[in-house]
Amino acid sequence: MATAALTPNGVLTESSLTGRVASVYSDVQNSRLRHSLPLPSVIQSPFNVIDGPPSSAAGNPEEIAKLFPCVYGQPSVKLVPEASNGLASGQILKIGVVLSGGQAPGGHNVISGIFDYLQDRCKGSIMYGFRGGPAGVMKGKYVILTPEFIYPYRNQGGFDMICSGRDKIETPEQFKQAAETALKLDLDGLVVIGGDDSNTNACLLAENFRSKNLKTRVIGCPKTIDGDLKSKEVPTSFGFDTACKIYAEMIGNVMVDARSTGKYYHFVRLMGRSASHITLECALQTHPNITLIGEEVAAQKQTLKNVTDYIVDVICKRSVLGYNYGVILIPEGLIDFIPEVQRLIAELNEILAHDVVDEAGVWKKKLTPQCLDLFELLPPAIQEQLLLERDPHGNVQVAKIETEKMLIQMVETELQQRKQAGAYNGEFQGKSHFFGYEGRCGLPSNFDATYCYALGYGAGALLHSGKTGLISSVGNLAAPVEEWTVGGTALTSLMDVERRHGKFKPVIKKAMVELEGAPFKHFASLREEWAINNRYLNPGPIQFVGPTADKVNHTLLLELGAEA
Amino acid sequence: MATAALTPNGVLTESSLTGRVASVYSDVQNSRLRHSLPLPSVIQSPFNVIDGPPSSAAGNPEEIAKLFPCVYGQPSVKLVPEASNGLASGQILKIGVVLSGGQAPGGHNVISGIFDYLQDRCKGSIMYGFRGGPAGVMKGKYVILTPEFIYPYRNQGGFDMICSGRDKIETPEQFKQAAETALKLDLDGLVVIGGDDSNTNACLLAENFRSKNLKTRVIGCPKTIDGDLKSKEVPTSFGFDTACKIYAEMIGNVMVDARSTGKYYHFVRLMGRSASHITLECALQTHPNITLIGEEVAAQKQTLKNVTDYIVDVICKRSVLGYNYGVILIPEGLIDFIPEVQRLIAELNEILAHDVVDEAGVWKKKLTPQCLDLFELLPPAIQEQLLLERDPHGNVQVAKIETEKMLIQMVETELQQRKQAGAYNGEFQGKSHFFGYEGRCGLPSNFDATYCYALGYGAGALLHSGKTGLISSVGNLAAPVEEWTVGGTALTSLMDVERRHGKFKPVIKKAMVELEGAPFKHFASLREEWAINNRYLNPGPIQFVGPTADKVNHTLLLELGAEA
Repeated sequence: MATAALTPNGVLTESSLTGRVASVYSDVQNSRLRHSLPLPSVIQSPFNVIDGPPSSAAGNPEEIAKLFPCVYGQPSVKLVPEASNGLASGQILKIGVVLSGGQAPGGHNVISGIFDYLQDRCKGSIMYGFRGGPAGVMKGKYVILTPEFIYPYRNQGGFDMICSGRDKIETPEQFKQAAETALKLDLDGLVVIGGDDSNTNACLLAENFRSKNLKTRVIGCPKTIDGDLKSKEVPTSFGFDTACKIYAEMIGNVMVDARSTGKYYHFVRLMGRSASHITLECALQTHPNITLIGEEVAAQKQTLKNVTDYIVDVICKRSVLGYNYGVILIPEGLIDFIPEVQRLIAELNEILAHDVVDEAGVWKKKLTPQCLDLFELLPPAIQEQLLLERDPHGNVQVAKIETEKMLIQMVETELQQRKQAGAYNGEFQGKSHFFGYEGRCGLPSNFDATYCYALGYGAGALLHSGKTGLISSVGNLAAPVEEWTVGGTALTSLMDVERRHGKFKPVIKKAMVELEGAPFKHFASLREEWAINNRYLNPGPIQFVGPTADKVNHTLLLELGAEA
Repeated sequence: MATAALTPNGVLTESSLTGRVASVYSDVQNSRLRHSLPLPSVIQSPFNVIDGPPSSAAGNPEEIAKLFPCVYGQPSVKLVPEASNGLASGQILKIGVVLSGGQAPGGHNVISGIFDYLQDRCKGSIMYGFRGGPAGVMKGKYVILTPEFIYPYRNQGGFDMICSGRDKIETPEQFKQAAETALKLDLDGLVVIGGDDSNTNACLLAENFRSKNLKTRVIGCPKTIDGDLKSKEVPTSFGFDTACKIYAEMIGNVMVDARSTGKYYHFVRLMGRSASHITLECALQTHPNITLIGEEVAAQKQTLKNVTDYIVDVICKRSVLGYNYGVILIPEGLIDFIPEVQRLIAELNEILAHDVVDEAGVWKKKLTPQCLDLFELLPPAIQEQLLLERDPHGNVQVAKIETEKMLIQMVETELQQRKQAGAYNGEFQGKSHFFGYEGRCGLPSNFDATYCYALGYGAGALLHSGKTGLISSVGNLAAPVEEWTVGGTALTSLMDVERRHGKFKPVIKKAMVELEGAPFKHFASLREEWAINNRYLNPGPIQFVGPTADKVNHTLLLELGAEA
């Protein structure tokens, strides 16, 4: 419905920003442009926005209440069908939208959803796309979004319609700049599409605008391929579904290759630094021989040696069965979860801030014996990475460490020792992979395309009803789209505080892999079978039409108690 | 037709070899199992096999004639419709099949095609799958192929139905072993599925069997994702279509990421060591800013500095326009095409065979001044790779050199110099990727699935008609499948000789990227536009149903004179 009305018939214009030209799209891109998006029933008919009970916070409600005096405690809301629309008709709104943080498939559809809501329900409204992330809000850098401008981005991956950025709006000066933009453009609302930090920021902005008696409302949208922004009310962040499916396609292919060649162990590092959701979901989709889950490694206080031994044990068992090949999934953030590595990195940061790393290695004497042992255990290339790669604050850039290569070398060393001890008789060849950038900007899966469109359409409704400080929430996702619920969750209800530099800072806690949650337990019940036998699944490329096109990822279904 | 007849209704058995269990396949794998394959019309109805004129060789026909006294000069053949079948009916054949060399999507369908031909036309025939490549033929290691055994592999990627190997059958002792297997199993025919070397080998085997008056005929099939086994009669090798589409999906995603982020140059190395067909095809599918084609680098006798300057020039031009991002495609074999690098590697091989590489670098004095200059120009990590990674023959393993990382470092250095000279004012961050194993075992595209099935079905017909020393040839591929031609090309007609150790050895010359060919010229006419403007295409994941599912790769269409 909404989509068709906005398709400029045959008039495909070029975006001046980034050079998207729908008329030279690939066949699949074009077919996606024409893909129409279903909406939840509740939002297609007359509806009203109903408040729930007053909300609290995820932790330390007193501190959160102090940090958000204007918006704390406000209820979450739900859209419900009404005989006649509960919202003012004929209203004309001025709405801004901004993308914040890393790319995730579906961001363009959130924008399309907001836009279409305004076209459908608030005819004559104006929509501004702030360019390059929050900095665009502060600097007043924007583009006016029109049907022609938006059209080439429908159901397309990337964030390039208005681009994103990693700036934050957090100092008084920055809040002032944002307020100036809001006033200048006479903004009724702003939608912030981002992850946990960006949504915390959105709430601070909502608070700030309200404290200044600005009319500009702020609504957040849950974005991150990492899947670590979720709660009871916000069942998943967009982009996770598509990214995992893209990685799983590649992993599945590598598995078939491993089995066909019969001589390689593929060590696959997967994006997702803070939490291991992507790795867990990819494991559920493909059934690898070994999967490392950072949260489990941390909970069991495993050492690097423990992790290596776990891998080597499986390799030895498989070798006895004649399988000298396999596939191992590793979360990007693995070493962040290993306590002894964290200690080593902390000591290295300290030493390198004050001392020169001499070639003779005298500096090593400053390491504690435990950390020195660990350092000496590491392959030379990793030692070098730990010493060389520093961020502007002088810290080791953990994300740049090629954990998959490190593990290959440590496994090689351990296998040699077992061979000498007569405990292993196979051949080992490791191949390393990192799947990351390939998944952040793929064409959104049908689920992400539809989910994002509903998130955006719902955000429009929240702004239309005058809400602020909420995150757009679409639920009941295991049911058909028509039955999805639409509403908004009080951002403060997702928050806790962390003490930094002696001050309380509000945070939306990252949702980590729950070791007692359904996805991990399902995985844990099967992994021994996967380790020894070859139960590889090849999910294949994402299909946009046909019987497999609308399937949702396992993590979400298992968390919702549905059959995955 | 043929497919349906062989589907065991509901009886999905597990392959004892590798653990494939169709009953736990992914949704897409299952949908591919059910995908029925069209056949060219000529092979669906009564046909006859018609000889063409006597054949010659691609070069040095006298030498080829001496090397293949029994099979040289025999005609290529074509299937033509006949009122009644020209081939003996009621014949029962014993046919073996072997996979040789690296994986390519579609291999399982070649086997299915042969199998179905025998079921359809030579009821009661027996088919043997030799396990683990040519070694399986020599050692008599095989499995009897049944409908239940084959079923789970239909339209699936990988070679794991019978697995492959890289052994060759070339010494008198090895030919004797192969002949013993042929005699023991009373083989009427053997189909060798492989690349240029394997098909040369197949022809030697055909010659050897005929010279021994064995009844066993040998037919080849053109396999390689690299796309370098092709000729007028063999328009493409299978697997190329699928592999390129998988790589192009990833490249397209990385492009959208580059444009969205606006700060990374992605250096993407692509599999395909000898020829740059994969890189060229991926460029045609995605429109990267820079594409290096090895054959052009070689033809222009470019140095590593030339290549670096070419990249840096484009980066500088783009920076002026505000684009500090981009995507660069690099063929895996690039440095093999650079004459000065070849010379350096030759000198290093020589030095390392006899001398110790001392830390002080005294060994470097043995390099010629030119090679020393080049060596000193290389980043330390690459210098190390050149000195450390040797194959069992003491040679540098060129394929292991991370060319993409080398180029990033060389580009960084050159950009720094230009910055100091005031000729560049941008920011550069390189990200490296290698796409290889992900593409060799993907689910075959509709084209590869159908093409392979026809190659196999045709190979069955060739054996049924008593032919040997031919390569299965399916043509007219730009037309609908019904109009495809089916036949066999004399393998000797594709051959030339190379002199090795004072002896002539027959070779099927690898088909390199032709700088005067339609695909390269098309690319060359567009690349300047792609370099400066952002004409990125995102081909998206391979679709198996819908309007885009049957599209063929650009290289093949352009070579056939069709619209790509």
